[in-house]
Amino acid sequence: MKRKSSSRKIGIWLAGARGDIATTLMVGTLAVRAGRVSSSGMVTEIPPINDLDLADLDSLVFGGLDVIEGSLVDTARIVARRSGTYTYELIDAIESDLQAIDEDIVYEPTALWGPDSPVETRPNMSMFVSRVRSHLKRFKERHALEHLVVVNLTSSESLPVETEAHETKAGIELLIEENRSESLTPSICYTQAAFLEGCSYINFTPNPGSDLKGLHELADQQGVPFYGNDGKTGETLVKTALAPMFAYRNLRILSWEGTNMLGNGDGKTLDDPDHKVAKLRNKGNVLDSILGYSPHGGIDINYVPSLGDWKTAWDLIHFQGFLDVKMTMQFTWQGCDSILAAPLVLDMIRLSEFAARQGESGPMYHLAAYFKNPIDCDELALYPQFQLLLEYVDSHLQRNTGAANLESID
Amino acid sequence: MKRKSSSRKIGIWLAGARGDIATTLMVGTLAVRAGRVSSSGMVTEIPPINDLDLADLDSLVFGGLDVIEGSLVDTARIVARRSGTYTYELIDAIESDLQAIDEDIVYEPTALWGPDSPVETRPNMSMFVSRVRSHLKRFKERHALEHLVVVNLTSSESLPVETEAHETKAGIELLIEENRSESLTPSICYTQAAFLEGCSYINFTPNPGSDLKGLHELADQQGVPFYGNDGKTGETLVKTALAPMFAYRNLRILSWEGTNMLGNGDGKTLDDPDHKVAKLRNKGNVLDSILGYSPHGGIDINYVPSLGDWKTAWDLIHFQGFLDVKMTMQFTWQGCDSILAAPLVLDMIRLSEFAARQGESGPMYHLAAYFKNPIDCDELALYPQFQLLLEYVDSHLQRNTGAANLESID
Amino acid sequence: MKRKSSSRKIGIWLAGARGDIATTLMVGTLAVRAGRVSSSGMVTEIPPINDLDLADLDSLVFGGLDVIEGSLVDTARIVARRSGTYTYELIDAIESDLQAIDEDIVYEPTALWGPDSPVETRPNMSMFVSRVRSHLKRFKERHALEHLVVVNLTSSESLPVETEAHETKAGIELLIEENRSESLTPSICYTQAAFLEGCSYINFTPNPGSDLKGLHELADQQGVPFYGNDGKTGETLVKTALAPMFAYRNLRILSWEGTNMLGNGDGKTLDDPDHKVAKLRNKGNVLDSILGYSPHGGIDINYVPSLGDWKTAWDLIHFQGFLDVKMTMQFTWQGCDSILAAPLVLDMIRLSEFAARQGESGPMYHLAAYFKNPIDCDELALYPQFQLLLEYVDSHLQRNTGAANLESID
Amino acid sequence: MKRKSSSRKIGIWLAGARGDIATTLMVGTLAVRAGRVSSSGMVTEIPPINDLDLADLDSLVFGGLDVIEGSLVDTARIVARRSGTYTYELIDAIESDLQAIDEDIVYEPTALWGPDSPVETRPNMSMFVSRVRSHLKRFKERHALEHLVVVNLTSSESLPVETEAHETKAGIELLIEENRSESLTPSICYTQAAFLEGCSYINFTPNPGSDLKGLHELADQQGVPFYGNDGKTGETLVKTALAPMFAYRNLRILSWEGTNMLGNGDGKTLDDPDHKVAKLRNKGNVLDSILGYSPHGGIDINYVPSLGDWKTAWDLIHFQGFLDVKMTMQFTWQGCDSILAAPLVLDMIRLSEFAARQGESGPMYHLAAYFKNPIDCDELALYPQFQLLLEYVDSHLQRNTGAANLESID
Repeated sequence: MKRKSSSRKIGIWLAGARGDIATTLMVGTLAVRAGRVSSSGMVTEIPPINDLDLADLDSLVFGGLDVIEGSLVDTARIVARRSGTYTYELIDAIESDLQAIDEDIVYEPTALWGPDSPVETRPNMSMFVSRVRSHLKRFKERHALEHLVVVNLTSSESLPVETEAHETKAGIELLIEENRSESLTPSICYTQAAFLEGCSYINFTPNPGSDLKGLHELADQQGVPFYGNDGKTGETLVKTALAPMFAYRNLRILSWEGTNMLGNGDGKTLDDPDHKVAKLRNKGNVLDSILGYSPHGGIDINYVPSLGDWKTAWDLIHFQGFLDVKMTMQFTWQGCDSILAAPLVLDMIRLSEFAARQGESGPMYHLAAYFKNPIDCDELALYPQFQLLLEYVDSHLQRNTGAANLESID
Repeated sequence: MKRKSSSRKIGIWLAGARGDIATTLMVGTLAVRAGRVSSSGMVTEIPPINDLDLADLDSLVFGGLDVIEGSLVDTARIVARRSGTYTYELIDAIESDLQAIDEDIVYEPTALWGPDSPVETRPNMSMFVSRVRSHLKRFKERHALEHLVVVNLTSSESLPVETEAHETKAGIELLIEENRSESLTPSICYTQAAFLEGCSYINFTPNPGSDLKGLHELADQQGVPFYGNDGKTGETLVKTALAPMFAYRNLRILSWEGTNMLGNGDGKTLDDPDHKVAKLRNKGNVLDSILGYSPHGGIDINYVPSLGDWKTAWDLIHFQGFLDVKMTMQFTWQGCDSILAAPLVLDMIRLSEFAARQGESGPMYHLAAYFKNPIDCDELALYPQFQLLLEYVDSHLQRNTGAANLESID
Repeated sequence: MKRKSSSRKIGIWLAGARGDIATTLMVGTLAVRAGRVSSSGMVTEIPPINDLDLADLDSLVFGGLDVIEGSLVDTARIVARRSGTYTYELIDAIESDLQAIDEDIVYEPTALWGPDSPVETRPNMSMFVSRVRSHLKRFKERHALEHLVVVNLTSSESLPVETEAHETKAGIELLIEENRSESLTPSICYTQAAFLEGCSYINFTPNPGSDLKGLHELADQQGVPFYGNDGKTGETLVKTALAPMFAYRNLRILSWEGTNMLGNGDGKTLDDPDHKVAKLRNKGNVLDSILGYSPHGGIDINYVPSLGDWKTAWDLIHFQGFLDVKMTMQFTWQGCDSILAAPLVLDMIRLSEFAARQGESGPMYHLAAYFKNPIDCDELALYPQFQLLLEYVDSHLQRNTGAANLESID
Repeated sequence: MKRKSSSRKIGIWLAGARGDIATTLMVGTLAVRAGRVSSSGMVTEIPPINDLDLADLDSLVFGGLDVIEGSLVDTARIVARRSGTYTYELIDAIESDLQAIDEDIVYEPTALWGPDSPVETRPNMSMFVSRVRSHLKRFKERHALEHLVVVNLTSSESLPVETEAHETKAGIELLIEENRSESLTPSICYTQAAFLEGCSYINFTPNPGSDLKGLHELADQQGVPFYGNDGKTGETLVKTALAPMFAYRNLRILSWEGTNMLGNGDGKTLDDPDHKVAKLRNKGNVLDSILGYSPHGGIDINYVPSLGDWKTAWDLIHFQGFLDVKMTMQFTWQGCDSILAAPLVLDMIRLSEFAARQGESGPMYHLAAYFKNPIDCDELALYPQFQLLLEYVDSHLQRNTGAANLESID
């Protein structure tokens, strides 16, 4: 019944291919493939989701782009040294596979711009989009890929100047054509390029792109599936699992204060107040939406270099019960961001390719559980989000079983 | 549309009426009634559950039984002094109401026995059940009660000797008739008496009774609704909200270790190894059921007198993610047991009376979210348990709306 | 041998007499005096310090100044309601004593200025100092006080413009005479007035005053003892007890991150960036001094209104051991600021009066353990600071014993 | 001035040479020696202690005994894999040095007995002591060692039957001679053998031996220094740094509850109730001694295999302040036992050899800070214990400086 599809070749093109998450994703995929570690953390490996006809890990081919040069083996060693999440032995064992990927990661320094960087340092927008498209094309041809999934894993960007042009496909085309770089970002350009090249698109960052209506229009026209924004890996994950408990007990939350200590590039970037806003915007509205009111609270993000890629979050939840008595819950979360993020990316690569193969296009609402700020989706609590995925899986399993039954009649 | 029913008089008969939870329940109900505190903690006061035609708080009449003598005002002062959950001012303001209840709480020293206490100290079982029944009858008559809900709030009991006689109504009748007190407990007798008197029954304790098949048979015959066991107020509540999160992320739990520090009578009782087993049995299987495997773990319960009725629980969750990396979550829960428990009891009183009024009988599965060990219910995760309650409410609201629509046609 | 001195009358004049600490100080002193609570929290009640001939609590007479009007009973009720640290019953029991104190607390709206408030709203400096002096004189005369201790418990002030004039007695006199209010603060004026009136002076706030060289010169001339700054009550207390442990084990601290959640006026004031700097300046250098190097770290202060006067601090200590392995310690501190502060103030009142009676003047270095930023004292670790107090006590006990021995010879 | 003595060869003979601490000690010493890691965790590397003329790390030669066979490289790999405290690369780099040590670790299965193991499995006591002595002799001769320090790093033993014979040298000799193994343990025999061979002796375990008066007598006669018991590495270390803070503030501790989760052999051993008692006995009296009263409290030790050699301790401190208000401090300690223990052992090896070289014998009270239960020492608080070490160092530095001055006069 269960047919794996290892002859197909599926491409993964990573924007930000030398970052911690991307590196961990590639090292981890090769390690699972080699049977050196379990598939812990991959939701597509648990029932009933593993009954879907998803792409085999063996069929995945990695490539991508980064603004820094380097070799994957070196990057893997840096991550191993700083975060201790895997050993040099593992890197040695998969060294040749990692080296092979290097040839498919392009060094693209022209991608190092933002809507607020000096105008003279920004590339011409049309040329930039073309350049990205040609990278995608070359990667696809080189490996005779059946399908290509583009994943955005870049650092937090400054916000672009808002404009009505974002609302339509034509508007965004015009922004690019007229080189209106103040209303564009690299992430918007990657999305545009991905859709034009018929690629599925996953935005794991808080950066804009897949949330713009104009790009939805383009995705619909091109018939490609996509989703985002901002992978839900740590404190927000816990929040969306825990906040409903207080709601179900009518325990009114007086204050929910969060403190995040982190030592990776993300923490450093969030020191820049502009980026801080972009990130916190995605975190902020989660509680209001789940609880139906706005408790006092805030989120502090502090850069603590000694933590490496590990994050320690402390949350203080002050709540009121019967007779208006105040009580307290606290939690600490000590997780490694790239270890938490990478398997989610791997899941979504497989689910995106599956969706594309089924001819589905547009926002993949069934991936809502993976994001802090799921596009066009009001459901922010974890449990009902996960039900969306289960319902999607069920509907596809029934369809396949139905088809199988018909065949077996023949 | 929303019709409150304050002319009805609904009786609440509490086994263990001078304990912390019972005292807090009565003080709190009077305080909410008097508008001195909010209805925080009462689930029946949040939409859409508050749209049901539930008994008004004004219609509730309290009574019950205890093995210790005393006045409610004194008990309320002791709780206030030890736990600081309400003030003497509040007690003063509701003093006359509390005094009035005293007349309906019977001092019943014969209830102070267990299946393992010396035989000569145990009462005759038939006489004990009769005595309880006559207390219930008198209370009902005295106040011309339309319905009576019996709530078990007694201390943890020793386990009775298991027997097949527990499986049938006739078997339990025979145990009582033949004075087989080693296979009975006060709680079993309260349940038997409640059902024979046509009362609804809520078992908030881990004690046996409502979980015995023989008593289910009796409840069916008598047409009364009931549910239990063991109110879910603190650490287990958090567990059943949080464990699914790990399951949905395929983050394998290696160890989930729980430590409970508590200073109330419950903590003292649990020092006795026999009672410890009864309590921990209810706590233990929650994770296995939600996760589908058995992580290493245990629950320590320590008596810390200075905490009074406050509990501090610390849980250490050690889990494994991608690349088999081990990560950690910890939480501390600082709650007051009686404050967390009392509003749940109040909710279930209202929902039991509602069910009885609708002619419903048997286990109230829609109350599963309230219990650590919901009777005959495999669903231990909090979210789907709460959906059961919402579905129940929805079905009743639709029925009523349907009726209203018909009427409006007329 | 031990002679208590209850016939003496000792005055306590509180700048900020209606704040949480002052109110708790007066309520608590009356409660201990009345035997309604223990003397927990008072260091002057433990051996060998309680062997000193300190002023009896009965001999203390309270008075002071505030910028807000009101009655002490009302303020006490507000504190009780918000923080739950004592009951209305207690307030009722000491009501007449509290009312009597009201007559000695002057409402002084002219004290509501700062070095950065609009020039036209600042009072004339000479007149302000005179006014404060006349309040002190009147209080002293009214009660025929043998000695007067002035305690600064005001809110955090903005920093004055620095000037060389602060370095000399003459300089400060000139600043006052020439109305140079931008280089003065209310706290500087209180100190000046206190010294001129021959009062001992304790600065429990981070505000300037007792740390200025010019005021030391005045204290010396007037022969009065004093000390400050900034009472050490919570997170910093723990830090100065714990940091030496890491030093003694050569466990290098990589990061020490502190987060403070507090809901009182102090928290609100610290929202103003100017005040924030003043406070954090005192907190910052503690670790560097104890460890001998500067670990990464910071202190976040967040205003969480629901906490009332309770503070929750969370500290994350990331440290390195043998083989450069990184390890972690975390702590949470849940304390009530005014409850922690008040007994320290009471201790220092008694120790100041004792010092004055012994004819001692200048900085009381033996009080270093009480302050975050002890004046002219390099010792910031708690244990050696406490040794300073014990040595002081020892030297006085030996002297007294010596005198007693001489007398007994006679 | 500072003269290092690398030509001397100093032997370290480890009882329990293949355990986690011993392995980490040897790997770490070689790693520091090779300049691959810092000297973090070694107190003998910080001023002024590093001014003593201590043995150079290069001069240390390791050997010992264990009840299990194996190679040090294998053991080092197991520790690395389970606890992640160092890498395979490091092991590779020092592989030949580790292999060299293997020749000096004797496999001694006859040491696997206890005072409660079946009589027939216990060796003859005289022969056992002789055997150990001959191991020590051979090691000393083989490497022409100038001095030998014996360190006890064995697992927790069952308690021996108490007897007056323990009180005298002659008594213990008789116990051995008469084969009274029920009143002896392997640790007692190691101590006896070490002293007879003129070795210094450090007991890092809670096992008896160096605390017996009879063995003190022997040490005095032989002129050798020694100390113990039970290395202070984690929760107790924190306790002895933190408890004085509460004492100095007269904050009465109501309850101090400790919970230890650990996954190493120590945790497993402590599952056996007999061993549990031995360990907890050492932990229990720390608070009473420091505080002067006995707060409610206890210590739970739970075996959590997934933690490997890492320990997570959670402590709840419930204390009372002014106005009898109850407040709370909690801490969690996440440390690796062998990483915390190994540098302390290394420190004490150097300090023991130094003491022996100075001709000092008997209990080394200046090592009190290193032990949970320092022999014949009432001082359990960390700070004054550390002062003992500093005073010892000071007295030796002054003596040396004095000598130096005399020489410089010549």
